[in-house]
Amino acid sequence: MNETELIQRLTASLPTNDSVRVGAGDDCAVLDLALPGQWLLFKTDAVVEGVHFTAATEPEKIGRKALARALSDIAAMAGTPTHALVTVGLPDMNSPERIEAIYRGMTTLAQQHGVAIVGGETTTTPVLTLSIALLGTVPPARCVRRAGSQSGDAIFVTGQLGGSLHGRHLDFEPRLSQARWLAEHFLPHAMIDLSDGLASDLRHLLDASHCGAELLTPAIPISDTLRQAARQTPSSKPPLLAALTDGEDYELLFTIAPRQAVPLLDAWKQAFADLRLSCIGRITAKPGITLRDRDGVRPFTAHGYVHFQKS
Amino acid sequence: MNETELIQRLTASLPTNDSVRVGAGDDCAVLDLALPGQWLLFKTDAVVEGVHFTAATEPEKIGRKALARALSDIAAMAGTPTHALVTVGLPDMNSPERIEAIYRGMTTLAQQHGVAIVGGETTTTPVLTLSIALLGTVPPARCVRRAGSQSGDAIFVTGQLGGSLHGRHLDFEPRLSQARWLAEHFLPHAMIDLSDGLASDLRHLLDASHCGAELLTPAIPISDTLRQAARQTPSSKPPLLAALTDGEDYELLFTIAPRQAVPLLDAWKQAFADLRLSCIGRITAKPGITLRDRDGVRPFTAHGYVHFQKS
Repeated sequence: MNETELIQRLTASLPTNDSVRVGAGDDCAVLDLALPGQWLLFKTDAVVEGVHFTAATEPEKIGRKALARALSDIAAMAGTPTHALVTVGLPDMNSPERIEAIYRGMTTLAQQHGVAIVGGETTTTPVLTLSIALLGTVPPARCVRRAGSQSGDAIFVTGQLGGSLHGRHLDFEPRLSQARWLAEHFLPHAMIDLSDGLASDLRHLLDASHCGAELLTPAIPISDTLRQAARQTPSSKPPLLAALTDGEDYELLFTIAPRQAVPLLDAWKQAFADLRLSCIGRITAKPGITLRDRDGVRPFTAHGYVHFQKS
Repeated sequence: MNETELIQRLTASLPTNDSVRVGAGDDCAVLDLALPGQWLLFKTDAVVEGVHFTAATEPEKIGRKALARALSDIAAMAGTPTHALVTVGLPDMNSPERIEAIYRGMTTLAQQHGVAIVGGETTTTPVLTLSIALLGTVPPARCVRRAGSQSGDAIFVTGQLGGSLHGRHLDFEPRLSQARWLAEHFLPHAMIDLSDGLASDLRHLLDASHCGAELLTPAIPISDTLRQAARQTPSSKPPLLAALTDGEDYELLFTIAPRQAVPLLDAWKQAFADLRLSCIGRITAKPGITLRDRDGVRPFTAHGYVHFQKS
């Protein structure tokens, strides 16, 4: 049993109640608590030293990243974040100055997005661990889920992909305003934020939507960081493969009706001149991911990266 | 700077907004999101192997305890828990069976209290860590805070205190129904759940209420576990000291107007025949905790337990 299978097994039998609109398996839980005109979004996310940052990472950036990841999940449902709780797990040796700097990084980002931090808890853990619980709201008609893509939909992605671990994973901007704008003007059929990597997160969206995708590989926006790295270190992972499989992009991946694709691109340029938006393929009825380039079409399996390795 | 001072310093400058009725420093955050007739309660709590349980603890009990602690915080504000998110931090070696058993312990308790578990996250941590984020609701007029005790109030505590680490910390019942009954029928001026120990948690309540307390030591309900332990191991911590300072009782401590004390005791016996309720002292205008017994009155300082040690 792998992690995904285990989680599926665990979440299949979780207790629920009438107010739960979306439970486990989407970017946030969605709850109908009879708030006037709003559903409540509920999300937790944890970062751990040695996994999401190192002992050498600047503490402000650790705090910022912990909150930014959770904000990105609220963005993935086109919501507005409102309140956060912070749990800090500490080994004994951590200095108060370091903790204060972690909080500083977190509160600065919280203020930028109007998020109230309404409590904090500390506990003892072997390595520094930050856990964020986040609430948000979304009008029911504008809540975008992972499920909902339809065959023929155009697939879009914001920004540039890959190479985030060179630095961007510590200072990315959660795409909150872009997601709300999308839901207001174009209402995507389905959306997810990219945390595990384009191929993995697209697969999550396809699984939830019960369909497949054909990606146009020349259209995938490969990050400048990746291109530079490839020039400097010719033996590194090929940039296209890295853009497909590197994690921690925290960009939005969404699908819309094909007739909306061109109007969206035009309107986007007006609204967000500084952020690239790329149409990278289309949703297919047939499950699975295929890649199309000038040489033809080939499947991209869960372990499909072998097709791309340099010989 | 000790932990309390650090947290005070960190929480003094947290961002807030208009919907926050109670932020950091109470058992839960209290939010006014315009739910009809309800405020929202928001709480996170984490348990860590080696701190809150051991590698030998039965996994069902680990899961149960993690959720029960958070439920106890909802009880402390007289609320009703509604939705939980679960974060499981795992070292690689944990078996799927163990995780399933942890979830089983958690979901059984969740079902008993009508709590929906609306998502789960796993991450890699050096030792098993469970973090619960919990939502609840409370009618604004029945929300009981730590602040609000008045000079002359009678101080009450449910159950028996001390010796929880002999086993009760793994299977205590969060006092949710009792707290709601109290808020409906007697509306305590202030309430807290006992997690750090009677003396520490009373001090939190007193600090929030800007007053002091005189405890009648013969009235403090010492647990049967402690009395047995004292008989078997005469060198152990004196039972009264243990009842004052042992943590993890998860009982309710609250104060009410003195004229309500006798009616409360009478009504309690009708409502909760199986759970002891003890009046253990009174709130004083003068800050600090004093202990009264047949020999007189003496102060109980933060390190006051030296007064009780056997010579």
